[in-house]
Amino acid sequence: MKRFAIEFAYDGTNFFGYQGQPSVRTVQGELENALERIFKVRIYTQAAGRTDAGVHAVGQVAAFNCPIERLTPVDIKNALNANLPADIYIKRAWEVSKDFNPRFAAKKRIYHYYISTKNKNIFLRNYMWHFPYKLNIQKMREGAIFLEGEHDFSSFQKGDDKKNPIRTIFKVRILEPKNGVILIRVEGISYLRRMVRNIVGTLIKVGLEHWSPEKVKEVLEARSREKAAGTAPPHGLYLYKVLF
Amino acid sequence: MKRFAIEFAYDGTNFFGYQGQPSVRTVQGELENALERIFKVRIYTQAAGRTDAGVHAVGQVAAFNCPIERLTPVDIKNALNANLPADIYIKRAWEVSKDFNPRFAAKKRIYHYYISTKNKNIFLRNYMWHFPYKLNIQKMREGAIFLEGEHDFSSFQKGDDKKNPIRTIFKVRILEPKNGVILIRVEGISYLRRMVRNIVGTLIKVGLEHWSPEKVKEVLEARSREKAAGTAPPHGLYLYKVLF
Repeated sequence: MKRFAIEFAYDGTNFFGYQGQPSVRTVQGELENALERIFKVRIYTQAAGRTDAGVHAVGQVAAFNCPIERLTPVDIKNALNANLPADIYIKRAWEVSKDFNPRFAAKKRIYHYYISTKNKNIFLRNYMWHFPYKLNIQKMREGAIFLEGEHDFSSFQKGDDKKNPIRTIFKVRILEPKNGVILIRVEGISYLRRMVRNIVGTLIKVGLEHWSPEKVKEVLEARSREKAAGTAPPHGLYLYKVLF
Repeated sequence: MKRFAIEFAYDGTNFFGYQGQPSVRTVQGELENALERIFKVRIYTQAAGRTDAGVHAVGQVAAFNCPIERLTPVDIKNALNANLPADIYIKRAWEVSKDFNPRFAAKKRIYHYYISTKNKNIFLRNYMWHFPYKLNIQKMREGAIFLEGEHDFSSFQKGDDKKNPIRTIFKVRILEPKNGVILIRVEGISYLRRMVRNIVGTLIKVGLEHWSPEKVKEVLEARSREKAAGTAPPHGLYLYKVLF
């Protein structure tokens, strides 16, 4: 039996998150529904990351076994795109080894978070966080440096999670791709739940100059969710790329 | 009684067009529902243009009588934005004379049509026409010139319309605001139904080099809808600006 990986984009606006759940619309659910329409059997998929409701993906990766031997990667891509709704799009497919699991094989995951600081643009309302306040980007950059490296990220995890809080972040970059738009790019191996959005929330406090850049270090070392700032909204966040 | 005009943007994706109709979601319907929530009476609005289902607006203009004398333009803007759904946004409000009707007062209406000729981007699927073919912009410009001026636009009107087909188009500009994105900007006084989308469909034929630029003149002079090309899809079109 062949096994395929797919790289795909989705608009998270109308999904209750990535992970399949009964009776709500999820990305995994729609993907497995499309596979079922193609193969007439239910096929389980494994993905590199589970995004929350409203969070988008530019380059999510999933893998599954294919019950029809003769299909090529191009066949898989075309068959899925013909059977998926308009808010999911398969960018490419390729064959992988029998034991390939994108969740464990991923060496790096890159998230992008977009903030619009200019006038409200309703066409971007689901695609950037509209935050019309002056942000000091230089100070945000200074604060972001404290997050790089291997740390206990307890201060940045969703309250009720009981996972190992030690994570590695390679880079946090604050960019301004065009005037009034701020992009926070986070590169890491893996993340705790809500971790990127909690990092964004804290960096915003620094950008507003409510907190000093050094406060990020304090928050991190406190290992307590209560010390960090609020969670940034989901619709600015994109799972941008997974590297293996 | 005061009368106000408002300039507003809407995302046409989830509307059955501008014009109010019973039992479907329209922009006019949502606007009048918001006014009813504010004033506790039904208030009729008049707009500068009626956009079709899926068509967006950056600068639609409407006017209505205000039953509360003390309200300022800023009050009107804020009250409406607090009572409108997320896909309509009031940009400004101003007081107008008792007899101001944006439909008849408009001196110029500018429409923008966006075409994306690059790889599919699902985040733009409702906001540009994805048409991944090479277009000869220079030839489109040559063809567009024939549309400028006062003409009988019967070839570009929706088949079942019985309106006077004589219209004035000041300018048709073909721009490339960024690599792979084509913007067709049409400036005119008023338009027949589907006219801009039918113009775009015909200019696309020229861009593909299926038709010569001079064919646009032929189509126009034929005064027959059958001679023109198909209608471009609604989701690339924006009512950009109305001038009085």
